[in-house]
Amino acid sequence: MARWDPNARERLIRAAVELFAEQGYEATTINEIAQRAGGLTKTTFFRHFSDKREVLFAGQEIHSRIMSEAIAEAPESATPLEMVKSALDALASSFPQERREVGRKLRTVVVNTPELRERSASKRAAHTAATAEALRSRGVSQLGAEIAAELGTRAFYTAFERWTTSPGTKTLAEHAHEVFLELKAALAVLE
Amino acid sequence: MARWDPNARERLIRAAVELFAEQGYEATTINEIAQRAGGLTKTTFFRHFSDKREVLFAGQEIHSRIMSEAIAEAPESATPLEMVKSALDALASSFPQERREVGRKLRTVVVNTPELRERSASKRAAHTAATAEALRSRGVSQLGAEIAAELGTRAFYTAFERWTTSPGTKTLAEHAHEVFLELKAALAVLE
Repeated sequence: MARWDPNARERLIRAAVELFAEQGYEATTINEIAQRAGGLTKTTFFRHFSDKREVLFAGQEIHSRIMSEAIAEAPESATPLEMVKSALDALASSFPQERREVGRKLRTVVVNTPELRERSASKRAAHTAATAEALRSRGVSQLGAEIAAELGTRAFYTAFERWTTSPGTKTLAEHAHEVFLELKAALAVLE
Repeated sequence: MARWDPNARERLIRAAVELFAEQGYEATTINEIAQRAGGLTKTTFFRHFSDKREVLFAGQEIHSRIMSEAIAEAPESATPLEMVKSALDALASSFPQERREVGRKLRTVVVNTPELRERSASKRAAHTAATAEALRSRGVSQLGAEIAAELGTRAFYTAFERWTTSPGTKTLAEHAHEVFLELKAALAVLE
């Protein structure tokens, strides 16, 4: 698979998000992204990403893995929501505060590009399915796993939106913690 | 907008699903769909659908409307989950038993075609958003509305899958009722 070169990968993501934000997704070529990422080549780009679109979503597989591992490692006695909370904390904590600006730009590009919105919805569903699978492996029922996973995904996306759009200096992990508490409160008054 | 011709519309949907199931989504042309629908023309097709893909998803806007109206009309005293239950019942009851065979074929085509799966995830998200909006209008909190809407969508899709893949003669409404009870039971043991 991809040669181990984490800096190139990160630089390509930043370059792509910047260019998409500046001149639009459609108008940006892979050559330009590679160039902007410090004079890399198209070949290097394709060593990391299958196409122009994937550069924005490739991270999501790592995110699914972080959540799944946290669920697998949660204490024996954890309830489904407690497992999801561990997973959410692990994922949110993996985002350093300095990635907020890229996150803000990325969000704007996705929201304003129909093709990317569609891809985003599909990836979000895949992410939820992976989390549900991890919960199933911990013995949670199919529907219980699906609901709990959905709550985790929702909490993450809501926290991510607040992190990237609101002023202030809260970390993504702090936003995620708050959103999770709000979700639990909302759950309590559904019936 | 579209001229009022409900039979042509329904025939086009059936024809498209049949052809996609027989020869694949990619290989099917709009001309073939129009022909199979009883000698209609491409022009008639485009009076009802913007492209080949939309023929499979156009119904979802009507479905969103059915759910939203049921939520708007639910009793004053209804809880969020009770409103969603009304909406689910209204939507599931709108599917006559004889549409099950088309539903089965449609599901198979979507599951096996990546482009359609992606579109389906996106439409599902739009459907959930519309339901959440209807709940917001009834005074439910943002996160409460989102969760309740998600539960409604999930119940519908799960019921639809059971309806189209399991043997037996249960109606979609009966499946929906069962799934909803299971969802409530799963909710009760999340924490």
